[in-house]
Amino acid sequence: MTDGDRSPVSVLGLGAMGKALAGAFLDRGHPTTVWNRTAGRADALVARGARRADTPAEAMAASPVTVVCLLDDAAVRETLGPAAGALAGRALVNLTNGTPEQARAMAGWAAGQGVDYVDGGIMAVPPMIGQDGALILYSGSREAFGAHERTLGALGSAVYLDEDPGRAALYDLALLSAMYGMFGGFFHALAMTGSEKVPAAEFTPMVVGWLNAMIAGLPAMAAAIDSGDHSAADSNVEMQAVSYVNLLDASRAQGVGTELVEPMGALLHRAVAEGLGAGAVSSLVGLLRTDPARR
Amino acid sequence: MTDGDRSPVSVLGLGAMGKALAGAFLDRGHPTTVWNRTAGRADALVARGARRADTPAEAMAASPVTVVCLLDDAAVRETLGPAAGALAGRALVNLTNGTPEQARAMAGWAAGQGVDYVDGGIMAVPPMIGQDGALILYSGSREAFGAHERTLGALGSAVYLDEDPGRAALYDLALLSAMYGMFGGFFHALAMTGSEKVPAAEFTPMVVGWLNAMIAGLPAMAAAIDSGDHSAADSNVEMQAVSYVNLLDASRAQGVGTELVEPMGALLHRAVAEGLGAGAVSSLVGLLRTDPARR
Repeated sequence: MTDGDRSPVSVLGLGAMGKALAGAFLDRGHPTTVWNRTAGRADALVARGARRADTPAEAMAASPVTVVCLLDDAAVRETLGPAAGALAGRALVNLTNGTPEQARAMAGWAAGQGVDYVDGGIMAVPPMIGQDGALILYSGSREAFGAHERTLGALGSAVYLDEDPGRAALYDLALLSAMYGMFGGFFHALAMTGSEKVPAAEFTPMVVGWLNAMIAGLPAMAAAIDSGDHSAADSNVEMQAVSYVNLLDASRAQGVGTELVEPMGALLHRAVAEGLGAGAVSSLVGLLRTDPARR
Repeated sequence: MTDGDRSPVSVLGLGAMGKALAGAFLDRGHPTTVWNRTAGRADALVARGARRADTPAEAMAASPVTVVCLLDDAAVRETLGPAAGALAGRALVNLTNGTPEQARAMAGWAAGQGVDYVDGGIMAVPPMIGQDGALILYSGSREAFGAHERTLGALGSAVYLDEDPGRAALYDLALLSAMYGMFGGFFHALAMTGSEKVPAAEFTPMVVGWLNAMIAGLPAMAAAIDSGDHSAADSNVEMQAVSYVNLLDASRAQGVGTELVEPMGALLHRAVAEGLGAGAVSSLVGLLRTDPARR
């Protein structure tokens, strides 16, 4: 193992995720400096060998790269603002949940400070941090990511996406929207079967098998979306719009709220109204783009 | 192969799905009688050895079991009504898309005719029919299903659920709602990444990996739903309600309509308002049940 494998790193923010990040660095033997507004949150990490910094600037000065994981973008600005001017030549990796616009704005601020900025999205919960199964997406300065890739590897599987600092947040939120869509469908399905007292554990294996089969069809949909050719449809939009009414009617009859499933029915009907009825449902993606300049 | 493997079967309705069903019976060597309102739709099947019936009653009289696959419940009633009284002792397997209530009403009508009634839900598109990957759910008369299970096996993987004739339609619609939820999340995700000109084919493999990882967590959610214990939360409802705002803000900023994703955000906020903020999102299923008697 070379020195590069154990280069110093600092962590700002010790919520559940920040603690997990700092802990993963310590586990790999990185000299780790930590800071948190409520200093006591660092106690357990200090007992494991972390160094406590009194200010964000002190923490950042201690290492060539600082990982930030705070509550939100406002907390990031509040924390880093006073440290302005003291950070030139260092790298900042911001893993705070945020939007692409916030990431781009932070990158702009960092550039003004002579700081190399990388933004990231953590696709994992704290107990997963430090394992290969923890996917962490990065975007922004390719040089800074490359220089600190081995250090960041302590946190999980590091995937660099693009020079656009907003790309990681975009992917993060897009993946979350895919997850919440699936969860919403699952919740609605369980509310339906639960209305007949079917245990969730009895129905769920069938859902899992079914969703896995449907996931196998996503790449073909992606190809249709990229080509714009939605003509290949074993079950076209119009047929699906008609049969979707059964789903809504049956939900109501079973005493299940339709709030999560109504928008898809409305979108199917809008697609029919816009002349897409004979094609595949992959055409629906186009209806979600409200900005013609971005289509 | 015994005679039982090749028992006669009749098929009413020769849309794309009905044709696939009749074709699968012919492929397995079953003497197959077909009927369709527009008789010409049977030509290709007749050329392959099917027998054409002039009326639904004639078709049903030709076989111990008749599979019905029509446009909707109204078409089923219109088609079977004139055949009333001529069907006693025979079995009817209704694979027409419908609701649990429609299935229960048809079962009641069939009982009055001395007909054994089985309702079914086809979880496949026509090209899949006849393959093991085609899942077909059945419910209703256990005796009739058992008597004709080998014949129905020609269509795909036959799964019998319950004596309640509405159960297959309930599962069918619940599985569809899970699928549409996942598709909706996928479509929204692709609209977001597409707003930055990321090809769908580039982003989709990451979605597939992510969804597969998230699906692995569904059985644990099911256990929480059955036990009512939603306390184990790596990421609680309140945190998710807060970060969900980023998803909505970023979608709008990227020119992506939020119609498919807003209801989940509203449900998360409702859960917080109802005191579920500290627990896991599995508690949201309970909020979808609008009928206290069915909880």
